[in-house]
Amino acid sequence: MIKPPSADVYAEARRRLEALAKPVGALGRLEDLAAWVAACQGTCPPRPLDRVRAVILAGDHGVSANGVSAYPREVTAVMVRAFVAGVAGANVLARQHGVALRVLELGVDDDLEDVPAEVSAYHIGSSRPIDQFDALTADDCREALRAGEAIAEVEIAAGADLLIIGDMGIGNTTPSAALVAATLGLRADAVVGRGTGVDDDRLQHKTQLIAAALDRVGRRAMDPFERLAALGSADFAAGVGFLRAAARSGVPVLLDGIVSLAEAAVAEDLESGVVAWCAAGHRSTEPAQQLALDKLGLEPILDLGMRLGEGTGALTALPILRSAVLALREMALLADLSTSAEGR
Amino acid sequence: MIKPPSADVYAEARRRLEALAKPVGALGRLEDLAAWVAACQGTCPPRPLDRVRAVILAGDHGVSANGVSAYPREVTAVMVRAFVAGVAGANVLARQHGVALRVLELGVDDDLEDVPAEVSAYHIGSSRPIDQFDALTADDCREALRAGEAIAEVEIAAGADLLIIGDMGIGNTTPSAALVAATLGLRADAVVGRGTGVDDDRLQHKTQLIAAALDRVGRRAMDPFERLAALGSADFAAGVGFLRAAARSGVPVLLDGIVSLAEAAVAEDLESGVVAWCAAGHRSTEPAQQLALDKLGLEPILDLGMRLGEGTGALTALPILRSAVLALREMALLADLSTSAEGR
Repeated sequence: MIKPPSADVYAEARRRLEALAKPVGALGRLEDLAAWVAACQGTCPPRPLDRVRAVILAGDHGVSANGVSAYPREVTAVMVRAFVAGVAGANVLARQHGVALRVLELGVDDDLEDVPAEVSAYHIGSSRPIDQFDALTADDCREALRAGEAIAEVEIAAGADLLIIGDMGIGNTTPSAALVAATLGLRADAVVGRGTGVDDDRLQHKTQLIAAALDRVGRRAMDPFERLAALGSADFAAGVGFLRAAARSGVPVLLDGIVSLAEAAVAEDLESGVVAWCAAGHRSTEPAQQLALDKLGLEPILDLGMRLGEGTGALTALPILRSAVLALREMALLADLSTSAEGR
Repeated sequence: MIKPPSADVYAEARRRLEALAKPVGALGRLEDLAAWVAACQGTCPPRPLDRVRAVILAGDHGVSANGVSAYPREVTAVMVRAFVAGVAGANVLARQHGVALRVLELGVDDDLEDVPAEVSAYHIGSSRPIDQFDALTADDCREALRAGEAIAEVEIAAGADLLIIGDMGIGNTTPSAALVAATLGLRADAVVGRGTGVDDDRLQHKTQLIAAALDRVGRRAMDPFERLAALGSADFAAGVGFLRAAARSGVPVLLDGIVSLAEAAVAEDLESGVVAWCAAGHRSTEPAQQLALDKLGLEPILDLGMRLGEGTGALTALPILRSAVLALREMALLADLSTSAEGR
């Protein structure tokens, strides 16, 4: 059980929010977010979220050879190069908000000779197709969990008021949906979505593949580590490790889409208390993401029909979280205004 | 009929969005917003929304003496002073986003001797209680419309890629609801809301007051100018003039809550084409705001349960609109990435 954010500071933040120069509750969800950040920091008013660091965890998936995506497997490596070149959606949004963005690949099937070596510093390997085999060996899964923890620790050591987690990997909505189904005890057809945009035929094929994976794994999926090794991948296991390390260190995380929600759901089962350190950036169009949000009790900040991945939903939501904190920090108290009005 | 944003540039922006390095449609609503900004600017990719200017139009309302608000009338002037002092919610958000913020009062019942004279440069006077009298004389309503136009022209002359409109005035959700009801042909009980937080008794009283106002005005409300003079106020008429002038000048506006939506609904009736230059910042908790959004075909960017006014909903949504523009401007084209991948 990970130590939760401070309940005392949460209550203190609520009291301060009620005393600000505005009707009680008039900032709506911003008030919940502001109090959560204060509780995470253990101080009210909270520090502004100036130092935000985002990590994109990339990897290839065995199922992507199997027609579950609208895009070919090679696009994963193409996008890793785009992140390094600074021209992808996540780069644009990170620049807008002054966020330090790092891409790390845990299992991209490409030599990536033309990108800096640190991108592959934690390379483990791509996953096997989950309808036929376990995605990872237990050893590789443990190594990937440790890699994710190490990645988070590097970010935290660099100074982070908030972490953001994003993903890149053609085919990765399939293991996401499988992990969410296995975690929540749902059938494949309840969790499957169109990912980057598959047609009806591929959607049916994707559903069958997820059902086959769930059948294959059976009751082993009740154990979160077994579930992750059987249905996930190195980048997913790294995401789980990343979230656990952030929570253990008391650093809040803004989640993104289906991949980060699948990771959070597994992380919470692996060690209770992880999700208390997470907020949800946005509601994606993937059913599994929405099911995981509900299960984890997370209400997303944005609902804009986004489904790009890369952390873009969380990055788009970041300024709202910052607004919440700034309102709690900088708005006058109603009592101070009344005094000055009476005193003139 | 005001000239609409460019349909050709809108189509061009849509084509560019489809060609960006992401699945088609994966940025969701951001894509609609980006194309709209490009169409307003008449150029694709659009310029970033660097120069944003916000105006808060303040005024007192005759009905506020009549128990329709949880707050006393004097709070309007207190908040005008808070805006000048830079300590209100709108100030905090404007600073966060580098937005130039100006407060102007059209009819606050206070000498405001201690605030800069330019705040009252367009002072006309507070409104009469709309259940008993027309809010404004026709002359005052015309003058307030012209004042709003002049206010917008000053902002536009200072250089504005986008304008934001906000409001301050205890009691102002009552005339807002009355204007929306009269514009949409609805009854008082369909539009009334709790404003800053009235209890059940006051809500019933507020409903009766709106019903009385609608009864009193009758079919005169079919004419938008008569409607505005009968049920609005100087600050509302200025808001209508502000929106019309912005649209005539081809400058897009980000709307806020119930007051700006009531103003937009009247402005559109007064001169068709105003709303094509408007986007909706957020969905407030006021039923009349949501009804006006639907009627005007506007889908808000945020839905966070905010109900503070002051332009705070629009200011909170601003970075999302900026993200949309930056994505359209700065993201690589998929074709460029593929070429570089093949060419290495």
